Amino acid sequence: MSTAVDWGNLESRIDALTTQFLATPHDAAMPYEGLLNRVRTQAGASNAGGKHLRAQLALSAYDAAADSGRARRSRPVTPGSISMTPSHSTSAARQSRDAMLDVACALEIYQTSALIHDDIIDDSDLRRGAPSAHKALEIGNNERLGHGLAIMLGNLLATASAYVVETSFARLHNHEDGVRAFLGMQRAVAIGQVLDLSAESIPLSDPEQLVCASLEVFRWKTASYTAIAPLELGFLAAGFEPAVAHESALHIGEPLGLAFQLADDLIDVDSSSHISGKPVGGDIREGKHTVLLADALQRADDLQRKRLLAIYGASARSKSDIAEAIGLFQSTGAIAQSQGRINTLFRQSSRAIDTAAALGSKAREPLHAACARMVPIADA
Amino acid sequence: MSTAVDWGNLESRIDALTTQFLATPHDAAMPYEGLLNRVRTQAGASNAGGKHLRAQLALSAYDAAADSGRARRSRPVTPGSISMTPSHSTSAARQSRDAMLDVACALEIYQTSALIHDDIIDDSDLRRGAPSAHKALEIGNNERLGHGLAIMLGNLLATASAYVVETSFARLHNHEDGVRAFLGMQRAVAIGQVLDLSAESIPLSDPEQLVCASLEVFRWKTASYTAIAPLELGFLAAGFEPAVAHESALHIGEPLGLAFQLADDLIDVDSSSHISGKPVGGDIREGKHTVLLADALQRADDLQRKRLLAIYGASARSKSDIAEAIGLFQSTGAIAQSQGRINTLFRQSSRAIDTAAALGSKAREPLHAACARMVPIADA
Repeated sequence: MSTAVDWGNLESRIDALTTQFLATPHDAAMPYEGLLNRVRTQAGASNAGGKHLRAQLALSAYDAAADSGRARRSRPVTPGSISMTPSHSTSAARQSRDAMLDVACALEIYQTSALIHDDIIDDSDLRRGAPSAHKALEIGNNERLGHGLAIMLGNLLATASAYVVETSFARLHNHEDGVRAFLGMQRAVAIGQVLDLSAESIPLSDPEQLVCASLEVFRWKTASYTAIAPLELGFLAAGFEPAVAHESALHIGEPLGLAFQLADDLIDVDSSSHISGKPVGGDIREGKHTVLLADALQRADDLQRKRLLAIYGASARSKSDIAEAIGLFQSTGAIAQSQGRINTLFRQSSRAIDTAAALGSKAREPLHAACARMVPIADA
Repeated sequence: MSTAVDWGNLESRIDALTTQFLATPHDAAMPYEGLLNRVRTQAGASNAGGKHLRAQLALSAYDAAADSGRARRSRPVTPGSISMTPSHSTSAARQSRDAMLDVACALEIYQTSALIHDDIIDDSDLRRGAPSAHKALEIGNNERLGHGLAIMLGNLLATASAYVVETSFARLHNHEDGVRAFLGMQRAVAIGQVLDLSAESIPLSDPEQLVCASLEVFRWKTASYTAIAPLELGFLAAGFEPAVAHESALHIGEPLGLAFQLADDLIDVDSSSHISGKPVGGDIREGKHTVLLADALQRADDLQRKRLLAIYGASARSKSDIAEAIGLFQSTGAIAQSQGRINTLFRQSSRAIDTAAALGSKAREPLHAACARMVPIADA
């Protein structure tokens, strides 16, 4: 039996955990708390509007692993073995799942932290349709103040997420391994961000190198916290052996995370599948060096390549530039190639679920469904 | 018996822990790793040259608490009680102290992280006589790149420090409380940085408010990780009850941390006690709103106040401005007042050591000595 995933609770629980962490005793006595209150308010604003895909994946992984454990424990008792009472009463199981819900929220709080720092680094003024944190925290165009407060807000949320995991995992299996996996995820994302800044310097004249470097960035910066860590934390919390939890999460999560990011880039240029809430072609407008662009450059004939380099070499891109670039992505076959990559990676991830020995056969179906929600455009 | 504090080992151990955390498998296979290598090199450069006062205080607190524990255990056995073997063999004690050494190193690694982010926020181009991290990481005056890499380096070192504590405290007492105390310290420092940015907006016309706000900033931003957390981590690791460890650390550490910061500001203007390696009057050159300045403004007559406001109101301060300001700090009695504050706080901290019931009488002397090293100019 799987407990239903508490989608609706996530937003309010994320808020409650963040508010609790940012509260200070003797508030009234603290002089000049105005900026701290603005930081608190921005924490709520930055947390809002997420789709909570990572939290949902972590809860699904936990449920699948917990179900597998229960299925193993309820196998017929072999003669001579000792009949054991279930390790969890219903109330204990509910308490554990509440703790896992907090771990899932920690993933979202950490994501908010990473996005706030990302937006500073990328100089992005908008996030989810609203001013990004460093813009919202500016006072009178004081950019240094906005950046400073946003760096600190990011730090506070990263620390909050680790604190929630430290506290919640104490009521779950594999406490120490869980905290280490979470901190290892924070490490991977920061390394991925450094690699991403490196990749910016790869010239468009070397699309092969660009594809290779971009996929490496996706591994560190996206797959880590989008798929691998949510799966590993869920498996660990439910009691999988740490090595098993790690290997299973890596085999399922790495291709899943890559497919997720490639799909995100593809959705950006495909109005038919346009569900992200961002305007079509936003990556092209920003001149982002995506895998899609690199694929198009590799497949283009001389004329097509010349046009793409002209569009991306300009200081800005108009609506008609965007339409032309999308047309070139289509006509070079880059879009079909990306869709092919996504399908292959998604199937690889699905096979890893099917061959994960620690997962009971009944527990696999809900996990397949959770992964399919991460990559709705995969054609498996 | 106290194990000798391993001053010499700290620098190399800090380096080893940081290098280990920043290493990646399959390095050779990672494309465009140039920036990551620069970040690794900068981690070493940013860690170097610290005085390791915080690590030393943490080790002293651990030794004092461990000695107190041994003294209690070796008290004459009361009739009827069970004779116990010591809870630690010598080799186990050495292993625990090695773990505590790593926790002490984590405090220094975290400090480096905080200083890197501070320097971005304060737009400081120098740190310990060398280019600050965001300056050193610039390529061809690309400020955005330098800032981005330095934000990530700060994040990596903050996560590294938490990871080291999570791993090391597993071999010490009070594992979970230790990790929570460490993360709570990271939280306090970030809140302190926000309060510090708030305090910048306090006008010099309100020196009373400035003193009050500055001391509050010192509590959060300095005392937290300079004194309270090192003491608490040492006490927890040696096995004090968590509530006792927290209260003792707070009572000793808060006045000690405040005295430390006030002394740092005083040393800045006093060439006779000039041991910090910074040029005399650096805070004045930067126009920093220190407690010393606020005290001087409160004590000044109209003419003195006019001069101070003129010096600090200017866009820059010359050598003769600095000399004049120091003269005014002296003649208004602000320097004597600061020295008085420092002495009072240091005595308060010393009394807290003497009245900490959990500390054995023999363990107090080395802890007094460790605290005196933090505030060499205190006249107790």
